[in-house]
Amino acid sequence: MRIVFHDLTVEPQPWLAQLRLAFPGADIALWQPGAAPADYALVWAPPQQLLDEQTALKALFNIAAGVDALMQMRLPPGVPIFRLDDAGMAVQMAEFVCQAVIRHYRELDPVEADARGGHWRQRKPRRRADFPVGVMGLGVLGKRVLAALKAFEFPLRGWSRTPHAIDGVRTYCGPSQWPEFLASTRVLVNLLPLTPETENILNRDTLSRLQAGGYLINVARGRHLVDADLLDLLASGQLSGAALDVFRQEPLPAEHPFWRHPLISITPHTSARTLRDESIAQIIGKISRLEAGADPHSLGGWVRTELRY
Amino acid sequence: MRIVFHDLTVEPQPWLAQLRLAFPGADIALWQPGAAPADYALVWAPPQQLLDEQTALKALFNIAAGVDALMQMRLPPGVPIFRLDDAGMAVQMAEFVCQAVIRHYRELDPVEADARGGHWRQRKPRRRADFPVGVMGLGVLGKRVLAALKAFEFPLRGWSRTPHAIDGVRTYCGPSQWPEFLASTRVLVNLLPLTPETENILNRDTLSRLQAGGYLINVARGRHLVDADLLDLLASGQLSGAALDVFRQEPLPAEHPFWRHPLISITPHTSARTLRDESIAQIIGKISRLEAGADPHSLGGWVRTELRY
Repeated sequence: MRIVFHDLTVEPQPWLAQLRLAFPGADIALWQPGAAPADYALVWAPPQQLLDEQTALKALFNIAAGVDALMQMRLPPGVPIFRLDDAGMAVQMAEFVCQAVIRHYRELDPVEADARGGHWRQRKPRRRADFPVGVMGLGVLGKRVLAALKAFEFPLRGWSRTPHAIDGVRTYCGPSQWPEFLASTRVLVNLLPLTPETENILNRDTLSRLQAGGYLINVARGRHLVDADLLDLLASGQLSGAALDVFRQEPLPAEHPFWRHPLISITPHTSARTLRDESIAQIIGKISRLEAGADPHSLGGWVRTELRY
Repeated sequence: MRIVFHDLTVEPQPWLAQLRLAFPGADIALWQPGAAPADYALVWAPPQQLLDEQTALKALFNIAAGVDALMQMRLPPGVPIFRLDDAGMAVQMAEFVCQAVIRHYRELDPVEADARGGHWRQRKPRRRADFPVGVMGLGVLGKRVLAALKAFEFPLRGWSRTPHAIDGVRTYCGPSQWPEFLASTRVLVNLLPLTPETENILNRDTLSRLQAGGYLINVARGRHLVDADLLDLLASGQLSGAALDVFRQEPLPAEHPFWRHPLISITPHTSARTLRDESIAQIIGKISRLEAGADPHSLGGWVRTELRY
């Protein structure tokens, strides 16, 4: 068995070491141009040549939850593709989104900014019922975020492409219910996958349908959001603020107006980090099951052979 | 029926108006020195004279969860005393503590400070198992905080004077298990009532028993904490920081060293605000049940006739 690895954003040695421990005797290496075709490839944002050279691939593993980096590429035909399905990311996403929702509702950013300036200034409590939270995307991450938000008694809404029933959440589906979902939401949480259909989905038209004082939490991809539209809606007062963890270009360029915008809270794509040990263990488990003859469709994180949502 | 009201920290008119709506025909007024004895008194930090004049009181309502303001006073003998039991405070406390724990664990304060300075800087993810959260005080608030924290998969501990069994939480009780509780905790959440026994309970000896990198979240009362001991333990590196919402003197005096301490996050006693409508409704409900002959011990929030925990 031959496994190749290619992810320029991480330290590769722990990956290689743990794979070698799990599969003694296998040929496990960093991908090099012209290398022999592999049985399994573990990649993040690979060069096209890596994919083109794979003539014997049994499965391709995307070392992330989002597969947008693979979506514009020519993929080895008929090869199952897996993304990380959780690997410790859902709980991180739940905690990141919950604290962002709480801090917005409780006005903790301005309260703490007052405190940093030496000012003791309480704010009038606001009504929880006035802050319905709507989650776009009801996969593993969206469901986990909603489950955690329940503890805080906000009215909850969810929207996704396909119908979902979630206890305690008013759900909407498809383009026909999209305006109704937005109109029933004040705090919007984006957890959609990035696809040609969802690119730029957060724009002037959609964001201006939120309830008065709308607030955006974008923890999916920067290309979901039309940056200039957000800035305009903040300037006009239609939106009250945004917590942005993802950007069209990362790191966010130094000259970008999001930096230091008083109504935008920026974090450096840190809402849900890929946890190395959990990710390696998950992929090792899937390779083992595939080698034992498991149906790829039966394994979590299967994306489709042809990468179209 | 005569009801008097005394709380100099709130706007009294909505209280009087809602009480009058609930009890038409009753004599409902702000307390004045020398007024006729009342059947019910609703108070926060009343003057001693108010209490001394009450010779016909059926119940005394404390307009807060904590009864420390009453504890040093001469109380009308044999009168049942009620505190607010929740009134929308438990969910606020859960959200405040959860965001404080999450922000500490995820290092979001320094991450956002970086962002305010225009720096894109990710931090290495930390291991959730290394951040056991221990809650002191397992009443309505403590239990609600622990229930909300469960969603985030931290190891959870709880300590209180009397034994409690809480699913998913390792509980300790009494002075004998206090050191063991502290040694099993890294992030310490204080939700104890303030009593002579708990005053100064957060001091050099106790706080230095926390696990390395200990972090304090004080959302109970300022007099639980020995301020100088906290400053020393932060200076020595034994503690990594603190989120303080309550202080020995409030507002926190301008010259206090907690202001602008880089490792201390300050909020102005805002973790769980008394919500007026919920509080009024709760007290109206209790007066109605007492008038209908209910046993005071059967009503939530009953503190004891003699105010000693």
